[in-house]
Amino acid sequence: MDNLGIVFLSELVGTALLVLLGCGVVANVILAKTKGFGGGTLMINIGWGLAVFVGVIVSYASGAQLNPAVTLGLVANGASEFGMGVPVNLVSVLVYIAAQTIGAFIGAIFCWLAYKQHFDAEPDAANKLGVFSTGPAIRSYGWNLVTEIIGTFVLVFVIIGFTNGGTPAELGAIPVAFLVIAIGASLGGPTGYAINPARDLAPRIAHALLPIKDKGGSDWSYSWVPVVGPIIGGVLAGLAAIPLLPILG
Amino acid sequence: MDNLGIVFLSELVGTALLVLLGCGVVANVILAKTKGFGGGTLMINIGWGLAVFVGVIVSYASGAQLNPAVTLGLVANGASEFGMGVPVNLVSVLVYIAAQTIGAFIGAIFCWLAYKQHFDAEPDAANKLGVFSTGPAIRSYGWNLVTEIIGTFVLVFVIIGFTNGGTPAELGAIPVAFLVIAIGASLGGPTGYAINPARDLAPRIAHALLPIKDKGGSDWSYSWVPVVGPIIGGVLAGLAAIPLLPILG
Amino acid sequence: MDNLGIVFLSELVGTALLVLLGCGVVANVILAKTKGFGGGTLMINIGWGLAVFVGVIVSYASGAQLNPAVTLGLVANGASEFGMGVPVNLVSVLVYIAAQTIGAFIGAIFCWLAYKQHFDAEPDAANKLGVFSTGPAIRSYGWNLVTEIIGTFVLVFVIIGFTNGGTPAELGAIPVAFLVIAIGASLGGPTGYAINPARDLAPRIAHALLPIKDKGGSDWSYSWVPVVGPIIGGVLAGLAAIPLLPILG
Amino acid sequence: MDNLGIVFLSELVGTALLVLLGCGVVANVILAKTKGFGGGTLMINIGWGLAVFVGVIVSYASGAQLNPAVTLGLVANGASEFGMGVPVNLVSVLVYIAAQTIGAFIGAIFCWLAYKQHFDAEPDAANKLGVFSTGPAIRSYGWNLVTEIIGTFVLVFVIIGFTNGGTPAELGAIPVAFLVIAIGASLGGPTGYAINPARDLAPRIAHALLPIKDKGGSDWSYSWVPVVGPIIGGVLAGLAAIPLLPILG
Repeated sequence: MDNLGIVFLSELVGTALLVLLGCGVVANVILAKTKGFGGGTLMINIGWGLAVFVGVIVSYASGAQLNPAVTLGLVANGASEFGMGVPVNLVSVLVYIAAQTIGAFIGAIFCWLAYKQHFDAEPDAANKLGVFSTGPAIRSYGWNLVTEIIGTFVLVFVIIGFTNGGTPAELGAIPVAFLVIAIGASLGGPTGYAINPARDLAPRIAHALLPIKDKGGSDWSYSWVPVVGPIIGGVLAGLAAIPLLPILG
Repeated sequence: MDNLGIVFLSELVGTALLVLLGCGVVANVILAKTKGFGGGTLMINIGWGLAVFVGVIVSYASGAQLNPAVTLGLVANGASEFGMGVPVNLVSVLVYIAAQTIGAFIGAIFCWLAYKQHFDAEPDAANKLGVFSTGPAIRSYGWNLVTEIIGTFVLVFVIIGFTNGGTPAELGAIPVAFLVIAIGASLGGPTGYAINPARDLAPRIAHALLPIKDKGGSDWSYSWVPVVGPIIGGVLAGLAAIPLLPILG
Repeated sequence: MDNLGIVFLSELVGTALLVLLGCGVVANVILAKTKGFGGGTLMINIGWGLAVFVGVIVSYASGAQLNPAVTLGLVANGASEFGMGVPVNLVSVLVYIAAQTIGAFIGAIFCWLAYKQHFDAEPDAANKLGVFSTGPAIRSYGWNLVTEIIGTFVLVFVIIGFTNGGTPAELGAIPVAFLVIAIGASLGGPTGYAINPARDLAPRIAHALLPIKDKGGSDWSYSWVPVVGPIIGGVLAGLAAIPLLPILG
Repeated sequence: MDNLGIVFLSELVGTALLVLLGCGVVANVILAKTKGFGGGTLMINIGWGLAVFVGVIVSYASGAQLNPAVTLGLVANGASEFGMGVPVNLVSVLVYIAAQTIGAFIGAIFCWLAYKQHFDAEPDAANKLGVFSTGPAIRSYGWNLVTEIIGTFVLVFVIIGFTNGGTPAELGAIPVAFLVIAIGASLGGPTGYAINPARDLAPRIAHALLPIKDKGGSDWSYSWVPVVGPIIGGVLAGLAAIPLLPILG
């Protein structure tokens, strides 16, 4: 298999695990009759952070981007190579984003299978959608977009900053896990921190396609916010890092 | 002592500590009058993750498998050697599984001793069993099996993935602790995540044998699910990793 | 750009991220209608600790002081150089403190933007101020000062102790994150642990200047406590470490 | 200063910080009107674990024992040297234990000062004592002793096991922090896990001597349990490790 095929599989498997565990912790906390019901926001934040931890571990080959906002932020930052020496160009960017989206879709399906009975037992359709995709606490597309932009800016800016001396390679995937917990706890309040277009859109498509009992709508009117916001935030972070990080590192 | 004896003791001591601390956190959260009563699911997830952390630390010699699903997953993956250079064959596999099972049994006894008064004070027999073994939130052997298979697949697949560059050896037992916290928080909702036949079956036997006050039944009708599910999940992970991990690493 | 300019930007960006995420977790837990509403004190402690983690990562060049109490503590300790080989003198100290203050001000603005709708929806003006700045649980300037002195003493004393062998460089920003979680959980009860004059004063100024809906006063009568207390604590720690740390390291 | 003087100061400062932060988190969670009131058991467990983390960081020179049960466990294990090359003998053991006890006494005083107003505001005398020292959930000296023996056995056995390859030196104080969180979450339910005679007895003496408002008794009838239990557990762990750890490492 050529290197482009390897990074495709690497991103796909990593994002699948990320979404399986990330959506899983939401299911555990909000669906009826689970053992984690009512486990609280901190449990969701820690669960999502460790979901990213696990995803990163198995996708070392591709650089563990697992997020189109990260991929596009690296492009905006002027990266010339992704993982495995794959050159940055339109084809490789599309391969990364396609792998992330397909992986997120597969992860969402397995999350549904793992919690099948609890989806059946849950009376509130909004909670079922909430396992798959984010939604705003107070709906206002403009301000929701602002929150997603800020959150994703922090994510991508700090990830680019990981190349500095403050983040030793010996720590592996721990710093990104801590970063995701931090963003979730601190900036997740208004929109539930998608900060990743693939993580939000692909499970929403899965929600629309899967035969989930009494599932209600997939809230397509909001669906563009957690796609466009993270892309803007990631690209802005990549651009902001050009003048800033050389002086920071 | 020969190497097979060393790995036997290593697995036994590690699994004993794992079960002592793992069952202990459940006792702390659910038994009457403890200081941790009502401590919540996140406390259980973190407690179990760190229980595995402690078990792994003291069983370095044997490779810290501590779980028949891990042992069988490694076999399915084609491992030729376990810890201490012990060759993989029917005898060594049985030694590992026997050590894990006996260790889990011993750990369960010490957990009961540590919480003796609280077992006596607890009015609900189901809670007493819940300290020792897992049970389903919604009973359905088929779907419960699916959940255990998915959870154990993630466990064993990522453990095999630890050999990749994403998990530096300098982190010791931390990655597996974080992985277990992640699986518990994300996939523990429906069945309480046994994901380890020895961890579930041996304490159940201890529950049946120990003179626990007003203990009720040991739910043998469910007992095969957290044995068979993890074995299937672990073997599937070992098999899936054969074509996938060479390209991921 | 000269080295003094680099450390200025480094401290500014680091403190901005620290305050954005730190104030953000408070907003998430206490403002109306957020997803983290009622998330609890541990969530705030972990959020603040990881906010410091993130700030430290991006300000490696300047030594990641991010706190005038740390800067002054290092001066009291007799440091001759800050980050990038910048010599310790009146100018460099003022540059560090100015950067920290401006960064904290900017971080507070972005926190407000991220939670704009929830500031609007929050009925209690005291909660709005609480996102920006600390306040005492029981008002008593003397005892509040004592608590801030003790908390900041621990912070700066242990940071100076990080140069010992007990804190390997391979851990990067993790030890300071754990230290801040520890201080918050353990000594944050009476005053909300400012332990950083810039973190408290600059967001308070932002609170006074920003057009926050129904915001009420900025509690200027208390504002000197989380400035003076941390400075005293930091300087005392720097002085105490002179005779102690040579024998401890 | 000679090496015995250095280890004395090292243990004293480390234990003082450990007790200041450890007792502090209990104060934050249980005393009236604090910001952490009702923060829960997990917050106490994490706070105590990180209190040990901080104590270990500043007492690297002496080997960061910080606990007479650890000191005596190492003696029982046959150690010939403590930190700084200090030989193990009656004098050095007494120096370690004296330093730990005096340090814990000093830490308790500063905890009281940091929470002075909340001790005054707290109506329940038992809660005031609970900040300083442990007490049983269900009083039964025999079973309470069993619980403390088991908990301290795990602590000291695993600390001795840290010399194995499963715990890289690059992790510094993190493994012991995780170990203490694990023991607290898992075995803290019945007695509040003293697992350290100095941590319990010295603050109890401070409680008896300090002018705490309406403080009630110091529960001397129980005070021997968290001294004798940990000593027995530590010595047993040191002895058990003699035949076991050579084969484990």
